[in-house]
Amino acid sequence: MKLIRYGNPGEEKPGILIDGKRFDVSDIIEDYDTAFFGSDGITDLQDKIDAHSLKEVDADVRWGVPMARPGKIVCIGLNYADHAAESGMDAPEEPVIFFKATSSMVGPYDDVIIPKGSEKTDWEVELGVVIGKKASYVTEAEAMNHVAGYVLHNDVSERAFQIERGGQWVKGKSCDTFAPVGPWIATPDEISDVNNLNLWLKINGKKLQDGTSADLIFKIPHIIHYLSQFMTLEPGDIISTGTPAGVGLGLNPPTFLKPGDVMELGIDGLGSSKQHVKAYSGQ
Amino acid sequence: MKLIRYGNPGEEKPGILIDGKRFDVSDIIEDYDTAFFGSDGITDLQDKIDAHSLKEVDADVRWGVPMARPGKIVCIGLNYADHAAESGMDAPEEPVIFFKATSSMVGPYDDVIIPKGSEKTDWEVELGVVIGKKASYVTEAEAMNHVAGYVLHNDVSERAFQIERGGQWVKGKSCDTFAPVGPWIATPDEISDVNNLNLWLKINGKKLQDGTSADLIFKIPHIIHYLSQFMTLEPGDIISTGTPAGVGLGLNPPTFLKPGDVMELGIDGLGSSKQHVKAYSGQ
Repeated sequence: MKLIRYGNPGEEKPGILIDGKRFDVSDIIEDYDTAFFGSDGITDLQDKIDAHSLKEVDADVRWGVPMARPGKIVCIGLNYADHAAESGMDAPEEPVIFFKATSSMVGPYDDVIIPKGSEKTDWEVELGVVIGKKASYVTEAEAMNHVAGYVLHNDVSERAFQIERGGQWVKGKSCDTFAPVGPWIATPDEISDVNNLNLWLKINGKKLQDGTSADLIFKIPHIIHYLSQFMTLEPGDIISTGTPAGVGLGLNPPTFLKPGDVMELGIDGLGSSKQHVKAYSGQ
Repeated sequence: MKLIRYGNPGEEKPGILIDGKRFDVSDIIEDYDTAFFGSDGITDLQDKIDAHSLKEVDADVRWGVPMARPGKIVCIGLNYADHAAESGMDAPEEPVIFFKATSSMVGPYDDVIIPKGSEKTDWEVELGVVIGKKASYVTEAEAMNHVAGYVLHNDVSERAFQIERGGQWVKGKSCDTFAPVGPWIATPDEISDVNNLNLWLKINGKKLQDGTSADLIFKIPHIIHYLSQFMTLEPGDIISTGTPAGVGLGLNPPTFLKPGDVMELGIDGLGSSKQHVKAYSGQ
């Protein structure tokens, strides 16, 4: 099943995608939230949908983030050897973790806003894992039972904020609009081999990232096991598993986003997203 | 006004504290959440309470975290010069930021659980600021208008996870029970000078931290202004402003928590909390 949400920001309703068409399910379930994922809502939804006649969503309605605001977004840093190398870092001996503010989430076709004072806003196509069942001290063997699905994520990053402003990376990861997520959550049965998915990202039509999840240094079962030693993963939480080479920081010379640029990205089975880059225009 | 929540974990109801007694307000408001803080709910509640006869909460009912799960907990690192020195770090030139998972929150008198494999679980008394109004690119002059209140927080930290396991501090800050918060949120009118509050923490009756918010390197208006350049602070979000000297890592020799220890901590005007330290006993 492919889970989507549609509607204006803050007013999104849940739906599903069938053969490229979006259908409303808001009369069946409330939202794709912690309660939904934590109560095996996917199975329940599947059962109810089969006996239901669904209403199609108009094609011009906005695509929202395909889940309600999660409790946390946990990101894995430097999880592709080629990206660690282009960042001038060694490949890590154990997973590097950082958090991204959930307030940074936007829909897959929303604009990305360059923050005030930013000169180094950068892109990162990433495979996101959505947690379906509470995970605390789980083994690698059990880990995949805790997955509700997978989702495309652009881990937009301000490199000066992240690296040059003292302390921890979170400073460059949490600006508004820095987490375009979607278009859909694919349940595991939709993905034949999560360890063999192509990830790509284009800037203004030019392909700059072109990797495969086969190259993940730490695989998904290990990541879930590992994280669950340090915190409880809750239903709806997102793990973003890292980005392959080809980010702006790694280009020669380093190249960053400017207003007017267009990012397009995709992962096999998870669709593609597209964001127009704009300057901050608020007060 | 002093805001409290009471009841079993996951079933807490909102209340207020008057002359040391807790009163239920769950028939007036739903919860102390983003919607409440963001709609000037405190003023509204005050108005409604005056015309209401309140029901007292039994003294033996558990004290909960005094707010619903916030969107984020933003912590300021090394914000007291004496704590930076004891940690072997320079005082920072600009605020150091890290996030703490909101899944780590527990009530003020709940147990703190030493995680599996931990040998360096440590304490940190901190002054927490609760955001009352969305803050994006706010000036220092405007910053205090975005504060809903203040709260006591024990920023429990696993130093090996934080410092010796690669990467970012979040790994040592986010274990379950690592964020005892409360007993209450004090609205700003309850605090005469937030820049002159005594903070203290005792382990097994011995006072080990004894500082004052007068020593904050970065003051609250600057912190709010600063954070709002990197992310949007939302109603209900917590900023934990840092800890003074006296943590276990800074003792000679370094000393960490063990099962059976008792932590007590307090801040002028924000009450005191007490946590029993236990070993992890799950599967």
